[in-house]
Amino acid sequence: MPDFEGHDAILMIAASETSPDLYYASGFLAPDDFVYFETPRQKVLLMSDLEIDRARAGSRADLVLSISKHEEAAKKAGVENPTALDALDLALREHGIRSLLVPRKFPVEAADFLRGRGFHLSFKKGSILPERETKSDAEIARILEVQRHTEAAMDRAIQAIRESEVRADALYRDGQPLTAEAVKRIVAFDLMERECIAQHTIVACGDLGCDPHNRGAGPLRADQTIILDIFPRSSESGYYGDLTRTVVRGRASDAARRVYDAVARAQEVVFERLRAGADGVAIHQAVADHFDHLGYRTGEVNGRLQGFFHGTGHGVGLEIHEPPRISKRGDTLRAGHVVTVEPGLYYPGVGAVRIEDLTVVTEDGYRNLTRCPKVLEV
Amino acid sequence: MPDFEGHDAILMIAASETSPDLYYASGFLAPDDFVYFETPRQKVLLMSDLEIDRARAGSRADLVLSISKHEEAAKKAGVENPTALDALDLALREHGIRSLLVPRKFPVEAADFLRGRGFHLSFKKGSILPERETKSDAEIARILEVQRHTEAAMDRAIQAIRESEVRADALYRDGQPLTAEAVKRIVAFDLMERECIAQHTIVACGDLGCDPHNRGAGPLRADQTIILDIFPRSSESGYYGDLTRTVVRGRASDAARRVYDAVARAQEVVFERLRAGADGVAIHQAVADHFDHLGYRTGEVNGRLQGFFHGTGHGVGLEIHEPPRISKRGDTLRAGHVVTVEPGLYYPGVGAVRIEDLTVVTEDGYRNLTRCPKVLEV
Repeated sequence: MPDFEGHDAILMIAASETSPDLYYASGFLAPDDFVYFETPRQKVLLMSDLEIDRARAGSRADLVLSISKHEEAAKKAGVENPTALDALDLALREHGIRSLLVPRKFPVEAADFLRGRGFHLSFKKGSILPERETKSDAEIARILEVQRHTEAAMDRAIQAIRESEVRADALYRDGQPLTAEAVKRIVAFDLMERECIAQHTIVACGDLGCDPHNRGAGPLRADQTIILDIFPRSSESGYYGDLTRTVVRGRASDAARRVYDAVARAQEVVFERLRAGADGVAIHQAVADHFDHLGYRTGEVNGRLQGFFHGTGHGVGLEIHEPPRISKRGDTLRAGHVVTVEPGLYYPGVGAVRIEDLTVVTEDGYRNLTRCPKVLEV
Repeated sequence: MPDFEGHDAILMIAASETSPDLYYASGFLAPDDFVYFETPRQKVLLMSDLEIDRARAGSRADLVLSISKHEEAAKKAGVENPTALDALDLALREHGIRSLLVPRKFPVEAADFLRGRGFHLSFKKGSILPERETKSDAEIARILEVQRHTEAAMDRAIQAIRESEVRADALYRDGQPLTAEAVKRIVAFDLMERECIAQHTIVACGDLGCDPHNRGAGPLRADQTIILDIFPRSSESGYYGDLTRTVVRGRASDAARRVYDAVARAQEVVFERLRAGADGVAIHQAVADHFDHLGYRTGEVNGRLQGFFHGTGHGVGLEIHEPPRISKRGDTLRAGHVVTVEPGLYYPGVGAVRIEDLTVVTEDGYRNLTRCPKVLEV
């Protein structure tokens, strides 16, 4: 049961398709906003007539109420033009609820309305359902399934790069320049075959890879680092996978090879420390020290950050980025956390390297959910 | 320029990928939350370091500020552990902003924080950017492009149904039962080829179609109505298309044919009334009267609604459902509104029929953005 922090109920209003907390709590996936509240005794949905059948059949709620019926009741009770919020007000009163705990992103309109009607409403610092961070075996199985699909797509993408023809420094496939866009299409189609949606896939060649949020575009080049970062969501389960590899078609420069080895070794630095009770900040610092020790400097050069400047890892589940973090502002790891291990180094003119596995934290270590090989030159 | 309703600035905090208002205002598509504020003089983004380069290159903002630099400044000014909200507080003060207009769904945590710091903050009733309802020619061109892709996918889907083999009352394709899932895959792949993402496509056969939110599943049957509702989003422009057709493989019953004709004629009832200044409630009522006149009753039977019980139309743009509505709670139409026209009748045991075109309202009528034929039996 969630922590009510002394309140009568937890309340959420959102579209569960974009609110993992609401999906997790209600077990119901819907593209439009709906209302969920939970008391220590029951889980209640307040739905539009169009969704009510589906919610009764497919949600985890103990009770599914109709907005329109509560609007009618509010009208009978004297509200002139009752809205969905009037319906909510009534439904909460019927359940004897006077104080509400809501998520940080709860809509201000509803908050102001309910406070105006005399409810005590406060938002929860941090996640409204922190128990969502710790994955059950069933959840880990779902994530593992997506990760296997992700690996298959990565395989296809790397195969296309490997089999490309090199002319001068450009890659060709079927007589056409092989572009980042073409590789992303291979990934997207392969994952769609597997009932997963891969958005924002990164295929970033050379200096484009030095901006970790640049998704990459244009012709791929030989002898340069190519970062492939794939993080699809299962259309069925809603869970994500996450996988990054860096490859070079042809020959990597000695400098790029050294950067690659440093990043690969940084993963080992993490793996040695990964276990329940470990401190995300300390792990991140160990990676930073490792890079420092090898002489890889981090900082701003010509107004752009280079070196090791993003987090070492993050939680993955119903969100692609969720707590806990293994970073400068990290968290304490617990058994059942599913976290990425993805150190990276970025040096314009030399190369951009990120290697990312997905792991589950255990009492005495971790289990790597990733089997995809790590090979620089292809 | 948006209406500030007497406030110094409009403020939004959201992920623009799931906040069309923020995408529309900033011109910047990002999957993670960022801050946008706009004064009568300028548009300002407050971004994480990871997104700042992309935001400077790709947004419509006049100024892109760094969260981390403002956090540092807040620290120097005496805040012990400055957060992104402290950074925002500082950035707003630097711009002389004291009062804020925010969207209805603005997060309560930020609202409480800013009010606690002395800002006057109120949410806007209705849309924060109502000008988004009225589409420019460039926007209409983008929507039309998606609609053409949608029609092509509809064509493929209906072709698969038309070419299926009928054995007893089941449809077969390549020796396998033709399922709703298989048709949805045809649609999804076809649209992915066209850089569009089609989620939640409906292929609902027989009584499944009587629940308009049931997406359909399982084998398709001959001589029964099949509703196909496709509403993909362009990955490039972010705009949606929306198209519904109802078909029968084989022979429709006389009763189903009459329902189909009534719905097709209901579209004409709308088209005759569609123009700038028309009242959405009145149009919806005219459709309801038309059905009533033909003897098609609407109401609850055995706890389920049947007849004509959803809206006649809705706006389409960066959201699949956006204002204006042509429904019981409708709006006044204006030139440049892009709206669906989608009457439907649903009778378990008889058939479920919805026919939907996408149109743009003009001063003296409308323009149908849809060319897809309307043929019941295939």
